[in-house]
Amino acid sequence: MATHYQDTIVLFGDSLTQMGWDPELGGIGARIADLYARKLDVLNRGYSGYNTDWALPLLKQIIVKREFQPHAARVRLLTIWFGANDACLPEFRQHVPISRFSENLTTMIRAIREPESPWYSPEMRVFLITPPPIHIPSMRADLKPTRTFDTTESYAREVRNVGKREGVPVVDAWSRIWEAAKKDREAVKAFFTDGLHLNEAGYKVVFSALAETLTQNYPELGPENLRSVFPLWDYFHSHTVEEFESENWLDKKSRAEE
Amino acid sequence: MATHYQDTIVLFGDSLTQMGWDPELGGIGARIADLYARKLDVLNRGYSGYNTDWALPLLKQIIVKREFQPHAARVRLLTIWFGANDACLPEFRQHVPISRFSENLTTMIRAIREPESPWYSPEMRVFLITPPPIHIPSMRADLKPTRTFDTTESYAREVRNVGKREGVPVVDAWSRIWEAAKKDREAVKAFFTDGLHLNEAGYKVVFSALAETLTQNYPELGPENLRSVFPLWDYFHSHTVEEFESENWLDKKSRAEE
Repeated sequence: MATHYQDTIVLFGDSLTQMGWDPELGGIGARIADLYARKLDVLNRGYSGYNTDWALPLLKQIIVKREFQPHAARVRLLTIWFGANDACLPEFRQHVPISRFSENLTTMIRAIREPESPWYSPEMRVFLITPPPIHIPSMRADLKPTRTFDTTESYAREVRNVGKREGVPVVDAWSRIWEAAKKDREAVKAFFTDGLHLNEAGYKVVFSALAETLTQNYPELGPENLRSVFPLWDYFHSHTVEEFESENWLDKKSRAEE
Repeated sequence: MATHYQDTIVLFGDSLTQMGWDPELGGIGARIADLYARKLDVLNRGYSGYNTDWALPLLKQIIVKREFQPHAARVRLLTIWFGANDACLPEFRQHVPISRFSENLTTMIRAIREPESPWYSPEMRVFLITPPPIHIPSMRADLKPTRTFDTTESYAREVRNVGKREGVPVVDAWSRIWEAAKKDREAVKAFFTDGLHLNEAGYKVVFSALAETLTQNYPELGPENLRSVFPLWDYFHSHTVEEFESENWLDKKSRAEE
């Protein structure tokens, strides 16, 4: 596979990310991949059950160190979507105290943004995504005692704080679903399969929040502003296969974008 | 992005492949990506409107030449799905005569399989997929005159011939949809959005044919037989973050598979 063939969007997170390709859920990953077909590859880096303590070492494997970057596909956008597991109550293994959650997110962002970091990637755009609200009555019996509505809300707020402090755009899944449910704790149910994981309606809300955040912050990354790496087939109305073969499409792509 | 982080499945073809991530169609690409989450990346290399004449030079960019393979993500499975456009009638630009269509597919396969080829990739598994039947009465007015049911059928048959001759497993989308429609040219309609492009029901039939072909030919590539690159979160029931960090997961992955 040609590594530099298409740049990438990497979706990094917990099960809310991992399940984003499930065709029954019309999830966020498949939706983005569809929009960027022939432009960018969209990679699933979702790890069901993970909190930020466990995800932090993962990031260092997902993002390439500076010295290897010339050999790797370029990541144009990285989304970081944690909190749903960190927000477990202290007696549960997935719990991460909110101050360390905040620190972990900050460490992830700085690993990418600080020139001294071995993973420094100045071209990579980063988005934080807040964990969505939860609906405890719909949860499986073993999940019910692990979380509270208010704790998850405070982790969502902390994501917004980190975003503001570090200057990283935040896709506010929490507020968007809360508003879509007219701020009614019971009505939130309609956006989940099991009170914790999003259903199609829930993913649609998050997707549209993400699309807006992209348009507001990095319009140049909008799918309508990126060209297909290889031409649409009407190219062949006026060109031969030999002409097609003689063009350096991968090189044209880079020149068009820089 | 770590290039060697996850191996890949590459879906190469025309619009039937490209549209396989559309969440409204519950398409084949998203479905496979969902099954292989945390195991393999599934890349969309579908080019709407392309025939095999135009796709042949593309393959040489999608597949890495031997000397660059150590720097690239490994392709475990490549699907080649053309014919829907090649089968246009001779007066239309997308038409490729059936003998050249056959030759083009053969050239693609041999580029990967012949030790003398610069693109030789002995570990890559290859599937051919036949073009599905068509339903002309549902087509847009400008598409109607471009194809006939019988011509597309003969291109599907040719894909089966190439598969047999070259020893490449064939996912027979044509026959499966034909059987699902009880061999009734009118009933075929139910599997398409517009007589040419598959809808959710159509993609489900092709997906299940592909899953069977995989199980019969390369069971070791079944998602249930591949391990997640990184462990499931219950690993942390009995391990610390330091233990997690000290393991070489990417290296373990290779050892587990070889």
